[in-house]
Amino acid sequence: MASNRRITLRAHPSGNPLPSDFSLIEEAVPQPGPGEMRVRNLYFSMEPAIRGWLDGKDNYFQAIPLGGVIRGPSLGIVEVSNLEGFKPGDHVWGLTHWEDYSILSAETILLERLDVSWNVPLSHYVGALGPSGLTAYVGLHDVGRIKAGDTVVISAAAGAVGSVAGQIARLRGCRVVGLAGSAEKAAILTERLGFHAAINYRAVGDLGAAIADACPDGVDVYFDNVGGRTLDALLPRMRDFGRIICCGMISDYNNQASPTPVHNLWQVVAKQLTMRGFLLFSHMDTLPQARHDLHQWAADGKLVALENVTHGIANAPDSFCRLMAGETIGKTVLAVD
Amino acid sequence: MASNRRITLRAHPSGNPLPSDFSLIEEAVPQPGPGEMRVRNLYFSMEPAIRGWLDGKDNYFQAIPLGGVIRGPSLGIVEVSNLEGFKPGDHVWGLTHWEDYSILSAETILLERLDVSWNVPLSHYVGALGPSGLTAYVGLHDVGRIKAGDTVVISAAAGAVGSVAGQIARLRGCRVVGLAGSAEKAAILTERLGFHAAINYRAVGDLGAAIADACPDGVDVYFDNVGGRTLDALLPRMRDFGRIICCGMISDYNNQASPTPVHNLWQVVAKQLTMRGFLLFSHMDTLPQARHDLHQWAADGKLVALENVTHGIANAPDSFCRLMAGETIGKTVLAVD
Repeated sequence: MASNRRITLRAHPSGNPLPSDFSLIEEAVPQPGPGEMRVRNLYFSMEPAIRGWLDGKDNYFQAIPLGGVIRGPSLGIVEVSNLEGFKPGDHVWGLTHWEDYSILSAETILLERLDVSWNVPLSHYVGALGPSGLTAYVGLHDVGRIKAGDTVVISAAAGAVGSVAGQIARLRGCRVVGLAGSAEKAAILTERLGFHAAINYRAVGDLGAAIADACPDGVDVYFDNVGGRTLDALLPRMRDFGRIICCGMISDYNNQASPTPVHNLWQVVAKQLTMRGFLLFSHMDTLPQARHDLHQWAADGKLVALENVTHGIANAPDSFCRLMAGETIGKTVLAVD
Repeated sequence: MASNRRITLRAHPSGNPLPSDFSLIEEAVPQPGPGEMRVRNLYFSMEPAIRGWLDGKDNYFQAIPLGGVIRGPSLGIVEVSNLEGFKPGDHVWGLTHWEDYSILSAETILLERLDVSWNVPLSHYVGALGPSGLTAYVGLHDVGRIKAGDTVVISAAAGAVGSVAGQIARLRGCRVVGLAGSAEKAAILTERLGFHAAINYRAVGDLGAAIADACPDGVDVYFDNVGGRTLDALLPRMRDFGRIICCGMISDYNNQASPTPVHNLWQVVAKQLTMRGFLLFSHMDTLPQARHDLHQWAADGKLVALENVTHGIANAPDSFCRLMAGETIGKTVLAVD
């Protein structure tokens, strides 16, 4: 326990972030005060939302200033605790920072003690059994109100949220079509995750036509992780009373000053569509059931936790940049070790 | 009863329609067959949706072909009836055509016998007490779920639907801000219709800033009749969990091939907004209560029926073109006489 390695913001990224936009510094290991605990971080959850904090503008949360430590969710283990309800050895989740050791308190956002007694790898709690999986579950049920027989299209379907969303929809009796950005990803969707069809959007000239081919009766529910041109292609393919689950618009995370315009919103009126945005922490009532179902499916071998794990805190920027460049498959996890 | 004057489509309009895009023809007065009735039309309801049928492409309904009679809703009086449940002298509403005499049957869309016993001018049944008022009511209640204390912004607020929507929202205890395209219209909103504030969007440089000034705590509900740039200006002003009632997007009705792009949809995710489109005939369960409330408010003098009435069937094209150019105030009605 020589020092606390921390990843800081060196420069505001221009478009896609680069590893050179980050620095690694070393500081003394922090000591918890009254009502605090020290956690040794095991895994960072790499999330597109972090991109929004790097531009110097507030986005959900305060912007990260130049020189500031990168904020992000992590899974860690308690070393020293002055916080009631937590003891050394507990596994915890919280919105902390990219660093070896974090100080957490009752005010830490997303703080919870994890039940890691299920027989699955610990990293899965960062992805399919963590917020990514819960987000997929809440989006499909609370927002999209899926029902058996629905045709469900999912964008960024080989990503952290999309890969779980497609499997949940299939387990609920829906017909599931995934959109992904490479032949390799598309093959994973149908061969490993049980999607009924997959479209490599980089290989089709007309995405709208490809969706029409894959969904000849139209689309009941679109789980939108990307926004922009993909949303525009889906809008004319929706069925009357279709639901669009607005989970993320990653196509614009790298370029928030000039978001991609959407032209086909007229379809919202003509087809009586519902487009609804949501954030996981507004749906706390659903989480106990969601956690139960996700863990049960994973334990029963019905849910594949698709993930890519990079090792070493020094590689966190590189891992994040590959996520934002669309190069990763499944949940992107950084193992601190 | 010499002839049946009918307005037909001479040319597909390019952008804003012009009176020269229409023709007036005269034909024999039609005779009703078994199960049909002949209605003498009294008032045509001028509606933006008709614009969508003039481009030769299907839009809700089949496109009107060149030479075809213009389709539109009308209020008429039964002259001869072979249809059970209807007798001469009944006032009826239905989706008919721009003509002196129409043949209606049980298959006529929107067909209903009107209760014209309330002490209001007959033309009001075309607007505030007809589909425009019902659309405003359904949108605010079923789609927007307004509640007392909400800040509600309404676009095209001096129009047929908007002028009623603003008054309903005010009667329900909301704070109501209207957007309109002239100083005259803005003055009518606050002085005659009881809006709390009005913005002449043509007179402000930055519409978003003007909305922020008028709604310092943000916007709970946006009743969107126009889409496009106005929707883009509203999105960043919405409060968390705000609702956008997608009633129409008139900004694009004249130019459906190149709809105005919308850039700020990211706000739907970040603020957990709901955007929902609707059509009146999907909310039949609400109509009895809506009809009752609207008639009661009108009879009690609490609801002003804002309308502009043009006389003479030959002037129907001109009336419609002025509506589509944004030159009319309140419900645009054509008195056939």
